[in-house]
Amino acid sequence: MNVPNIPIYGVILAGGWGTRFWPLSRSQYPKQVLRLLGSESMLQTTVERLLPRIPEERLAVVTNVDQAELIHQELHRKGWDEVRIWIEPEGKNTAAAVGLAAVYLGESAEDAVMGVFPADHFIRDQASLLQALDLGAHWAQAGYLVTFGIPPTRPETGYGYIKQGAPLDDQGKVYRTDRFIEKPPMDRATEFVAAGGYYWNSGIFVFRRDVLLAAMSRYLPDLYRELARLQTKENRPPLSEVYKRCPSISLDHGILEKAENVAVVPVEMGWNDVGTWEALHELFPRDERANVFLGRVLDQNSQDCIVVAQNRLVATIGLERIIVVDTPDATLVCHRDQAQEVKDLVTELHRQQLVESVQHTTVGRPWGRYTVMDEGPGFKVKLVVVDSGKKLSLQVHHRRAEHWVVVSGTARVTIGQEVSMVASNQSVYIPQKTPHRLENLTVEPLQLIEVATGDYLEEDDIQRLDDDYWHPDKG
Amino acid sequence: MNVPNIPIYGVILAGGWGTRFWPLSRSQYPKQVLRLLGSESMLQTTVERLLPRIPEERLAVVTNVDQAELIHQELHRKGWDEVRIWIEPEGKNTAAAVGLAAVYLGESAEDAVMGVFPADHFIRDQASLLQALDLGAHWAQAGYLVTFGIPPTRPETGYGYIKQGAPLDDQGKVYRTDRFIEKPPMDRATEFVAAGGYYWNSGIFVFRRDVLLAAMSRYLPDLYRELARLQTKENRPPLSEVYKRCPSISLDHGILEKAENVAVVPVEMGWNDVGTWEALHELFPRDERANVFLGRVLDQNSQDCIVVAQNRLVATIGLERIIVVDTPDATLVCHRDQAQEVKDLVTELHRQQLVESVQHTTVGRPWGRYTVMDEGPGFKVKLVVVDSGKKLSLQVHHRRAEHWVVVSGTARVTIGQEVSMVASNQSVYIPQKTPHRLENLTVEPLQLIEVATGDYLEEDDIQRLDDDYWHPDKG
Repeated sequence: MNVPNIPIYGVILAGGWGTRFWPLSRSQYPKQVLRLLGSESMLQTTVERLLPRIPEERLAVVTNVDQAELIHQELHRKGWDEVRIWIEPEGKNTAAAVGLAAVYLGESAEDAVMGVFPADHFIRDQASLLQALDLGAHWAQAGYLVTFGIPPTRPETGYGYIKQGAPLDDQGKVYRTDRFIEKPPMDRATEFVAAGGYYWNSGIFVFRRDVLLAAMSRYLPDLYRELARLQTKENRPPLSEVYKRCPSISLDHGILEKAENVAVVPVEMGWNDVGTWEALHELFPRDERANVFLGRVLDQNSQDCIVVAQNRLVATIGLERIIVVDTPDATLVCHRDQAQEVKDLVTELHRQQLVESVQHTTVGRPWGRYTVMDEGPGFKVKLVVVDSGKKLSLQVHHRRAEHWVVVSGTARVTIGQEVSMVASNQSVYIPQKTPHRLENLTVEPLQLIEVATGDYLEEDDIQRLDDDYWHPDKG
Repeated sequence: MNVPNIPIYGVILAGGWGTRFWPLSRSQYPKQVLRLLGSESMLQTTVERLLPRIPEERLAVVTNVDQAELIHQELHRKGWDEVRIWIEPEGKNTAAAVGLAAVYLGESAEDAVMGVFPADHFIRDQASLLQALDLGAHWAQAGYLVTFGIPPTRPETGYGYIKQGAPLDDQGKVYRTDRFIEKPPMDRATEFVAAGGYYWNSGIFVFRRDVLLAAMSRYLPDLYRELARLQTKENRPPLSEVYKRCPSISLDHGILEKAENVAVVPVEMGWNDVGTWEALHELFPRDERANVFLGRVLDQNSQDCIVVAQNRLVATIGLERIIVVDTPDATLVCHRDQAQEVKDLVTELHRQQLVESVQHTTVGRPWGRYTVMDEGPGFKVKLVVVDSGKKLSLQVHHRRAEHWVVVSGTARVTIGQEVSMVASNQSVYIPQKTPHRLENLTVEPLQLIEVATGDYLEEDDIQRLDDDYWHPDKG
């Protein structure tokens, strides 16, 4: 079949934080920005994968207010400044996110064909994806809500399944869907694999925006009514008000399981949802005892293990089916059969308000990054890295003084009215209550050690007087 | 029986480093100085336990040149400056260590009764130990080489056993030994427990020094001949020369298994040799799932585990019989059935010359301690703590400059000819090649952050010009 090249708008869903990848993921450093599988983040890889088919200016990322800055940085680092970022005021599951995207897309094209892509999945075979996408777009234009089904290679109980119905073509390339099945128990999953005609639900969809909205108005009328309020040009209500009233439900549950015009395109493309640490065992090379070791790991006699050593030495002896993930401030040791339970653990960390669930010791900023090296009563020590050409906001701290020792590069430092260049192996002192700014005008990164002293040393003792950056937490 | 109060000289053997307690133990921070079981080190607890019976001035610690400074600090912190430290130039097992102590003791008392005690065992019931010691001293004075046997509570395969022979008294309190048995397999250990009359070899001994030396001259004549050369007043050979020629053999193997006049005093005293991480499961309270958790541990559904979190958060899920030990620069995860194998792992660390086998990020010094917080190309950051009234040597670094930021207390700083007081929140700069000294004249500890910069940042770039301390590594 000769498929015409239908324009596709791409919507990347990047709103979750991937709790199951704690301690590498944190609420302020979600799974989609992790470099789990290489030097690019999962989000970057997702965009890269689509670019041959969907140009930058037709791509959008739907995310939330907490992650928007991080998502922006990830895209900006790759020079993808045309990709739009649509910000949900709160997470309301995929039906709302996709509905919001459909509404926003309406400003460009009433009957646009839109593809929906999770930001944090792995797909080995890009060509197969893009080919399936073309086919899907064809059926989408014909009025179908198109899903993509992965032929199962094992009786996986962690995925949802789609059962195919009657064929839509005569080549076995696309079917009506018979039904959707939630994560099944092992015996049923085994049946599915044996029977054939069942697929893993990849979470990738293609449809016309008007077809989606029509289905939404029928099957999720409450959600549709709220989102429709955004389509008026005048007296448009604030998004946060609209979202407060949106039901929280997935696209699959809310619409696809109920609609009549749903199709499934089977596609083998080396897909993995990278749902838990378990995925690493499939995605990385294993040693002769079936272990996956990343980082500085010294092992004796372990087998079927997954060990991720971020910077420290991790020594393992005689382990079987154990996951170890070691980060600068938290270590996870978990049986592989319970990798799903990391989610509950993180819920508990959150309940106890432990900082280890929120951020890493290294925190990315628009101008570079900082790492909290140590803190004690009355002091806090950081390594601060300012990227070439970047500057921090002009700022004041009311309860702490700062000593900066430059260890590489050259800093331009403003303290009160004084501006000076501070070279490697020089230091400056910034008294409390004194406006100051740090800049790197050079082409080399600037690294300095900051020793803060005072009776209160948290990040929120900062008054920004002049700022190049947008800080969502400042409203 | 009324036992007369015989003077006892106490010899504490503190020469090993307890590799099986890696990563808490390091070659420069051995097991006997670990605070494994409370706020005191195992060595301090050992001394404390003996003091009611053996006064400070009759106690000596036999150790090696690498550990001598550390041992001195441990004793000094408790004010035990009368305890002698006898330094072996190299480790040659217990026969040589005890023989050396016997020779040195001869300078005080020809027929002294000497007790030998490992520095790193746990004994819950001090009174029972001291009572058994009195009884042992009585039989030692009568010419026996007295061992102490622990009635076994389980078929332990990790200990050596002593089989009792004919009774020496009519109360069943002391027996001749029938034989010594090396760590037995499980079936034999089970037989021993069932049969009775077998004891764990506690590694504690009492004998007259002349009786020991007589046995040594008979059963280990080579060792005896070498050590005897130290008894001459004139032309006494250097200890290192003597030691080079000493055979390396244990007291048990070399003498006790062969001698005729060996006795065993059975004693129940809550003894544990704290040989591996396994011991913690016996010595610490367990939760309802039989886990021992020390430090910041968050668990879901684990059982029979031992988790030691030194400062980071450790999260565990669904583990069974697993040991986790988390330190600032290294993490161990080991199956409990393989706790012995930690020794092999450390051999491998040593072979690879990894610093994690040698020292911790925090290093104790006679004047306080320092912690390496971070290092990178061209810089190294430390937290330096100088105890009240202490000073560092006057020193020069040829390849690094140092910035000191005082974060608590007040420093007296000498730089070249200049002396100044540097208070909290002040900083000073020490250029390369400049003599400098750091002192704390106050009653509070002094804490400062040191940022060193330069092309070579290792500890050996130091020239000490004037020094209060003895640095064994400097010869």
